[in-house]
Amino acid sequence: MIVALGGGIGASKLLLGVCQAIDPAELTVIVNTGDDFVLHGLTICPDLDTVVYTLAGLADQERGWGIENDTFNALSWLARYGREAWFNLGDRDLATHVHRTALLRQRLTLTEVTDLIRRSLGVRARILPMTNEPVSTIVLTDEGPRPFQEYLVRDGARHAVRAVSFEGVKRSRPAPSVLEAIEAADGIILCPSNPVISVGPILAVPGIRDALRATVAPVVAISPVVGGRSLKGPTDKFLAGLGYEVSALSVARLYQDLLDLFIVDRLDVELLPAIEALPVKARTAETVMDNLERKISLAKETLSWLASLRPE
Amino acid sequence: MIVALGGGIGASKLLLGVCQAIDPAELTVIVNTGDDFVLHGLTICPDLDTVVYTLAGLADQERGWGIENDTFNALSWLARYGREAWFNLGDRDLATHVHRTALLRQRLTLTEVTDLIRRSLGVRARILPMTNEPVSTIVLTDEGPRPFQEYLVRDGARHAVRAVSFEGVKRSRPAPSVLEAIEAADGIILCPSNPVISVGPILAVPGIRDALRATVAPVVAISPVVGGRSLKGPTDKFLAGLGYEVSALSVARLYQDLLDLFIVDRLDVELLPAIEALPVKARTAETVMDNLERKISLAKETLSWLASLRPE
Repeated sequence: MIVALGGGIGASKLLLGVCQAIDPAELTVIVNTGDDFVLHGLTICPDLDTVVYTLAGLADQERGWGIENDTFNALSWLARYGREAWFNLGDRDLATHVHRTALLRQRLTLTEVTDLIRRSLGVRARILPMTNEPVSTIVLTDEGPRPFQEYLVRDGARHAVRAVSFEGVKRSRPAPSVLEAIEAADGIILCPSNPVISVGPILAVPGIRDALRATVAPVVAISPVVGGRSLKGPTDKFLAGLGYEVSALSVARLYQDLLDLFIVDRLDVELLPAIEALPVKARTAETVMDNLERKISLAKETLSWLASLRPE
Repeated sequence: MIVALGGGIGASKLLLGVCQAIDPAELTVIVNTGDDFVLHGLTICPDLDTVVYTLAGLADQERGWGIENDTFNALSWLARYGREAWFNLGDRDLATHVHRTALLRQRLTLTEVTDLIRRSLGVRARILPMTNEPVSTIVLTDEGPRPFQEYLVRDGARHAVRAVSFEGVKRSRPAPSVLEAIEAADGIILCPSNPVISVGPILAVPGIRDALRATVAPVVAISPVVGGRSLKGPTDKFLAGLGYEVSALSVARLYQDLLDLFIVDRLDVELLPAIEALPVKARTAETVMDNLERKISLAKETLSWLASLRPE
């Protein structure tokens, strides 16, 4: 059993590769819910949806969010009613939020709802929210605090980041099966997601970081920073905003208490000595996953490293 | 000021004519909410929506429900999640229900929500729900009780009707402005809607029937039954199911305590003596509104009768 932690597009790309490399039923994904928010009265879980849609083969590859070939007629009508229309909601995607919100109001947990949704869409990997309690990633910008989606989507990530907090995380508990999955894992992958606002919230849920430190299973992370910049999304802005150098080395530092191996892009081969001096074992790989072949190839490499690190 | 009572398609056709015949700002419509129900966690108000969409010029004329040129992508996705898909929800129409549900959860009343929606869609006539309390029209069929939309849409109105009840109506109060509008009206129209399940629930809200009896303004009704059958919808099944003859005369009997004038189709001219014997003053008109011209013409005729009946 492989356990992966992450959220969003970077994670989904790797996970698509993992599902080609092993039986997807052998994969459990623990997903960030710090981006979740309520809009138009609907509970929206961007990272859970990106992972589920991607593994279902339904994600819109070009846009990087939502469902392929979706239409936007409900959104245009919501705008007509004067509702905020900055968060793109396709009509099919909207159905997911309506369904989820209806089930949550019937007192199902987010874990249960997520499981129903991924099964309905034919996803065989198990997808777990990090917690069933509400946690909100708040970005403290030079213009004041912003919930993550407002910072990213509404404001186009244009404000300088000064700090990040995860509201509610101290009172949160790992969702059912999260700690059990980590304990039972043969190998654990920290996906190439934003270490501050995608993997960060997961590690901040009380008990999860400790479980990753305690497990005998090897833990491997893949750097989302290549050649001093993030391939996708605002990872560079978050690292810089929090006072870190924008480099794979900074990511390795954030994870160093957990890691058995850190994978950086071949472009960053010169960082290996500094990473190994942390000390964190490091290797290079081709980490830019711009086609399915490369996703599968990085997944296979990661899995074979995990196998080689496994205790006898 | 003209006040009209009704719900659904028959009412909307006439009201479209009224809005051409007078300044729409001079019209208040009191609409049945007994058909309202919750589906997918959303509050759906079929009669309010039909009236608003029609007066906004957005109704789908061919289908008779929903918004013209709407798409159904969210619905197909809801079905994919195993949700009930018997109630057709277009993507634009879904936005109305999402918007309304979000506002109701913010503690706005249905009156306030309806007013926001009709203004957003450019409807100048005032549209009032009959009540802000939940009332459910329940059809007792030979297969057991059915909420109205399940009887009509899900089961295709195929079960025999034995009785009808309006759950919650005894505890309900007229929505704000309803009694005031009736009291201030220069004329009142009972639209050619189903007298049992469209106008019936409105008259069953405590205080509304009494206000209609008490007002000095003339009250005119138009028969939805022509030549012994209903032009649209299951009015005939409801009249027959409740033991009434399917005829304009039965409709006149249901309203006789309220009416100053009852308008029947020219086809039913032979019913005039029986209606006048109730005694209810009766006239004939061309009541089949199969084009805009006929809607306007029936509206004008109705308005001029109202004017002629007005006390000096």
